[in-house]
Amino acid sequence: MYGAVIHAPGDVRYEQRDDPTIEAPTDAVIRLAATCVCGSDLWTYRGTNPITRPLRMGHEYVGVVEEVGSEVRTIAPGDFVIGSFMASDGTCEICRAGYPSRCVNVVSMGSLGAQAELLRVPWADGTLVATPGAPAPELVPSLLAASDVLGTGWFAADAAAVGPGKTVAVVGDGAVGLLGVLAAKALGAERIIAMSRHADRQALARRFGATDIVTERGDDGVERIKELTNGLGAHSVIEAVGTQESMLQAIRSTRAGGHVGFVGVSHGVSLPGELLFYSEVHLFGGPAPVRRYLPDLIDRIWHREIDPGLVFDLTLPLAEVAEGYKAMDERRAIKTLLQP
Amino acid sequence: MYGAVIHAPGDVRYEQRDDPTIEAPTDAVIRLAATCVCGSDLWTYRGTNPITRPLRMGHEYVGVVEEVGSEVRTIAPGDFVIGSFMASDGTCEICRAGYPSRCVNVVSMGSLGAQAELLRVPWADGTLVATPGAPAPELVPSLLAASDVLGTGWFAADAAAVGPGKTVAVVGDGAVGLLGVLAAKALGAERIIAMSRHADRQALARRFGATDIVTERGDDGVERIKELTNGLGAHSVIEAVGTQESMLQAIRSTRAGGHVGFVGVSHGVSLPGELLFYSEVHLFGGPAPVRRYLPDLIDRIWHREIDPGLVFDLTLPLAEVAEGYKAMDERRAIKTLLQP
Repeated sequence: MYGAVIHAPGDVRYEQRDDPTIEAPTDAVIRLAATCVCGSDLWTYRGTNPITRPLRMGHEYVGVVEEVGSEVRTIAPGDFVIGSFMASDGTCEICRAGYPSRCVNVVSMGSLGAQAELLRVPWADGTLVATPGAPAPELVPSLLAASDVLGTGWFAADAAAVGPGKTVAVVGDGAVGLLGVLAAKALGAERIIAMSRHADRQALARRFGATDIVTERGDDGVERIKELTNGLGAHSVIEAVGTQESMLQAIRSTRAGGHVGFVGVSHGVSLPGELLFYSEVHLFGGPAPVRRYLPDLIDRIWHREIDPGLVFDLTLPLAEVAEGYKAMDERRAIKTLLQP
Repeated sequence: MYGAVIHAPGDVRYEQRDDPTIEAPTDAVIRLAATCVCGSDLWTYRGTNPITRPLRMGHEYVGVVEEVGSEVRTIAPGDFVIGSFMASDGTCEICRAGYPSRCVNVVSMGSLGAQAELLRVPWADGTLVATPGAPAPELVPSLLAASDVLGTGWFAADAAAVGPGKTVAVVGDGAVGLLGVLAAKALGAERIIAMSRHADRQALARRFGATDIVTERGDDGVERIKELTNGLGAHSVIEAVGTQESMLQAIRSTRAGGHVGFVGVSHGVSLPGELLFYSEVHLFGGPAPVRRYLPDLIDRIWHREIDPGLVFDLTLPLAEVAEGYKAMDERRAIKTLLQP
């Protein structure tokens, strides 16, 4: 089979690789219906994460089960499934507490390479969720989004304690930030302020439920949020970038007692203790426990209550994966869907 | 009247000062029944916080109301009252949300100097709580503790999501850490691990409800907590020191999805974003919203359910305030109570 391999910054290739097989009795092998490029893949593509050997890429996936190991109980060949970007056993104390992305037996799906025709999924029972049947083709992008970016935006909104009556600010206008807007809307937020300076992303943010757009960043961005919130800051702030500037902007845009949900993968961030102490905001984030949200998210997509697939503004054959990365790197695309 | 003034590191004097008076119609003036020295006062005493001019000291107080301003409604002369170390109006949006220590009109009681015979309390209705009557003398230390250290330890336990079935670790064996142990016990924690290497403090921790004592610090301390928690870390960790080492120890001792409640006043702390992201712990802390907890804490003390006054192991006349600081600085005392 074929899949994506990165050899050096900017050098993603579509290459023949061995077909994955069942290695453990808890594994499944799926044939991908769709996969995609993540904003976090760009940390590698741009060389921020070092590349010391050729790496398989991709951790977002939907597809049809080809084969399962002898201990798999809840998933069967022929099922259309979605899974998290982190495989989790579903039974450990951390999984049962709701944090499957930190399962004691976690496997990063990125290490297996989901930008491919076939994918081995460890801990199939704990990781995958089957849809009620074969999905209508137009639902596939939204189901794919649930694998990471929707689940991650949803977790950020949950971590930021979004709910009815709340004012929510969203730092970051990539797919995760935009789906944080969608999640905030779905969770009943009263006012949703999207921080974006790109017209196409602003438009999508409004479509997902943003009530206000703030184009300023840094100190000016914080000032604008304060102006819009009676000088207090937002109740809930979603951080979906992962830089020092975005984290400080998020914390400083939050009112005392409010909540920051941060899901941008941290790169070079260092937070002053004094700021955390005196800002008195709840801070919670990390790799999203997507699996916890999947049944609910699939249900909402299935009943067409939400349409997160709108974040895909470029669709390419998997063979053109290199162009998919390039378009996102150059900000010509918000998110690239790849069809094997 | 007389009160404590610090002139330079280590130089606390008992000096004559002007009697406080009602300055705003929302003020009260109280005659102190007891006051005390806080671990956070030592940051100033030791010169970590710069002293550019003589400063009044003290922010913990109980006493009898002498006089109230014309707009005060809930407190009257003759009432025995306790208040938070932060005066708050009780009516702003932040107060109503439960964060009075970050009130938009907050006044730090430390700036007014509670180590004195008389004290002006701004926002009397929002700040002070009257006891059901004149307290028995043996309850006064516990009521005084509620003004800061008990309320702060309680907030830390609340911020750390302590509750039934939880394993709690407490970093810091000062008065706040020890009262964090008491709070954890009162809030139903199953197991409480106190981190301390001092026999007297270990004994008090056990009296307050600690089930385990860990004497190791840093990496070794984290390792011990992991050993005691099936390799996962504690559900809830209370941080009551405020240094880089104690914050990292607290975060690393917490399981994924767990909660850190930090109340040690941050000094020179810088938290790596990557640690926060991948540890996936809830982080919340800051100046404790003591006023929110006061009615409940007074009730528990009044009914002798808790005895937080045990943290006072040295009682001196207020005139000997300098010795009160010295004893705490030299760790000869956990906490000094001062009698005007």
